[in-house]
Amino acid sequence: MKVLVANLGSTSFKYRLYDFPSEQQLARGGIDRIGLGDSNCFVEIGEHREEVVENIANHAEAVRICLQQLTAPETGCLDSVDEVSAIGFKAVFAGRLSGIRIVNEELLTAMENLGDIAPAHNPPYAAAMRQLMQSFPEIPLVAALETAFHETMPEEHRLYAVPYEWKTEYEVQRWGFHGASHRFIGRRIGELLGRDDLRVVSCHLGGSNSLSALVNGKSMANSLGMSPQSGLPHNNRVGDFDPFALPVLMRATGKSLEELLEDLANKSGLLGLSGLSGDVRDLEEAAAEGHARAEMALNTFAAAIKQYLGSYLAFLGGADAIVFTGGIGENSQRIREQVCRNMEWAGIVLDETANQSATEECRISTPESKTQVWVIPTNEEVVVARQTVETLEQHQK
Amino acid sequence: MKVLVANLGSTSFKYRLYDFPSEQQLARGGIDRIGLGDSNCFVEIGEHREEVVENIANHAEAVRICLQQLTAPETGCLDSVDEVSAIGFKAVFAGRLSGIRIVNEELLTAMENLGDIAPAHNPPYAAAMRQLMQSFPEIPLVAALETAFHETMPEEHRLYAVPYEWKTEYEVQRWGFHGASHRFIGRRIGELLGRDDLRVVSCHLGGSNSLSALVNGKSMANSLGMSPQSGLPHNNRVGDFDPFALPVLMRATGKSLEELLEDLANKSGLLGLSGLSGDVRDLEEAAAEGHARAEMALNTFAAAIKQYLGSYLAFLGGADAIVFTGGIGENSQRIREQVCRNMEWAGIVLDETANQSATEECRISTPESKTQVWVIPTNEEVVVARQTVETLEQHQK
Repeated sequence: MKVLVANLGSTSFKYRLYDFPSEQQLARGGIDRIGLGDSNCFVEIGEHREEVVENIANHAEAVRICLQQLTAPETGCLDSVDEVSAIGFKAVFAGRLSGIRIVNEELLTAMENLGDIAPAHNPPYAAAMRQLMQSFPEIPLVAALETAFHETMPEEHRLYAVPYEWKTEYEVQRWGFHGASHRFIGRRIGELLGRDDLRVVSCHLGGSNSLSALVNGKSMANSLGMSPQSGLPHNNRVGDFDPFALPVLMRATGKSLEELLEDLANKSGLLGLSGLSGDVRDLEEAAAEGHARAEMALNTFAAAIKQYLGSYLAFLGGADAIVFTGGIGENSQRIREQVCRNMEWAGIVLDETANQSATEECRISTPESKTQVWVIPTNEEVVVARQTVETLEQHQK
Repeated sequence: MKVLVANLGSTSFKYRLYDFPSEQQLARGGIDRIGLGDSNCFVEIGEHREEVVENIANHAEAVRICLQQLTAPETGCLDSVDEVSAIGFKAVFAGRLSGIRIVNEELLTAMENLGDIAPAHNPPYAAAMRQLMQSFPEIPLVAALETAFHETMPEEHRLYAVPYEWKTEYEVQRWGFHGASHRFIGRRIGELLGRDDLRVVSCHLGGSNSLSALVNGKSMANSLGMSPQSGLPHNNRVGDFDPFALPVLMRATGKSLEELLEDLANKSGLLGLSGLSGDVRDLEEAAAEGHARAEMALNTFAAAIKQYLGSYLAFLGGADAIVFTGGIGENSQRIREQVCRNMEWAGIVLDETANQSATEECRISTPESKTQVWVIPTNEEVVVARQTVETLEQHQK
């Protein structure tokens, strides 16, 4: 069975093609500048890479050219489009419509109605899925909601201290996100240590950031709450914030609530703190050259990660492993070092040399460290592919 | 030098009278139902207690009757009102006008302008202080702002990840509150352990709740952020909350932002969670009788305390002592037990018997516990009295 996993941006479409049950990745590709003219459309199949520039008006056309490239007579890896059993999506938020779902009108309406909870993610996903449903009615679309993995969180970690009916009636609770990544990490660290009874803190640090506390591969807590703007600071999204600052800001700036929430979702996070960039690589470079606000943004970010790490160690009664993943988690020696510094009291001892040389999956704690610290590249796509296959099989039963 | 320390509610006035430099408490008293008719006005001076019922129209009249009782010919402890060198107040929030300050027009205006940050505290304080300034122009009024103690917090614990100018121009930052209580605990635990180099997590749990991380008696972090509604759940105030839930709630309930913030400041916290009461004593009683939401509210509260405890242990690199104080901290065996349960990995071992029998200042950890756990009754009033005396002395220089 072959499954395409799609990663959508408002003007981009990236994908991977998997074969099951082998889980082999057959191809990957991407199309940028959708709707903007002169899109680069690339595909990699085994050693072969192909790239064309075309005008791609919308996401349906992007999928059409992707399927053309995958089924090209000489270079393709598919005989026919019929071989694609489904397209799987890592969808962000549809409230109580969580879990893994065949995309239908009910789901799309829920995603659209909750657009202001996930303004960077829900609107482009819902729009693109609508186009694909119309243009490829023969291919099932499967949405793996990011919140699904966190359905095992105990109630005391889900609840805000608000009137209880706000949860039961209006779905105001800590949902947790980044489910595919934390699920992947939970399974992978279990394989690496040969155990399924692990207490793990999974640190997904990329453009968007969250920590999860895992027990036996299941989510007990996640730093993202009601919206993907909460928890740790993100590249340009705020992280935890006090809503009672809003009326003060409305008076001071003359902005509306909507405008302020837009600032919190676009102009905040590492970008807001540094005034320079939301990208940790840029900030580390600038900080090394003495840029004070870049340094301060990195320190604030590391302090917030450390805060959630401490919280989750307390929840778990200590951890067997801490895993860093995502673009920052896999590549920033500095952030990993700052987070793990001075944690010997908790049985966490980083191996400085291993931390500096880590480029792929590897342990970066010393042999004496009671809690093992790992770097593990995440693979959200394979998780979505697995879930897509499982969902199709269930529906075919 | 004699100093009156006042604790104001919107319809109440409680006070203590201190003598300096001995720090002896000469008297305490209180007046309730101000403006509502039939106020109980009590005073305790040594062994003598006196109580009268009178109509007290406002806070100025309340102070007048308090001074009458303190200077009463036979039973009083003052020869004349002139002996009162100042009245000190634990004031909550005046933004950048922090520290300890002689009350003046600038301070009152700042407190009034920031009324919606501290809606339960600022308006009654500012109104009462105005009355007292007018009625007792000869008595200096000194405000000890709750934020003052937290001026030592490092920047990475103060900053929200918002556009930086929101901090520099609009004072949007984590201020921290409960300064007098955490300051008292920091000094007292140092006296008890005979050291001034301690790393301490001070847990002030009462109607309003916060944890602070202290190093050498100085604040490094506090769970209260921009407003006293943030951090841990409070009796009826929300604690940490995701502002992106607000537009969803506005649509669902038809309420305005202002009305929702009012709900977050009045109908939330333990009261909102339980639907029963904001008082931990009521909730413990109900939970013991099987009230599911009371049980869940207590568990959510304990989980939030544990979250901040873990955070602060990580910030501090472990702690020498954890101190519980405030009405809940001093009296709830259950909450202390839940917070310290399963923390042996961090060197924290509660002595169950000591925890159950704790009624006053005492250690409740086992002798082996690397981190000592204490119950210490707080005394915010003596801190305010000390600061009032210091401020007067500085002004007289």
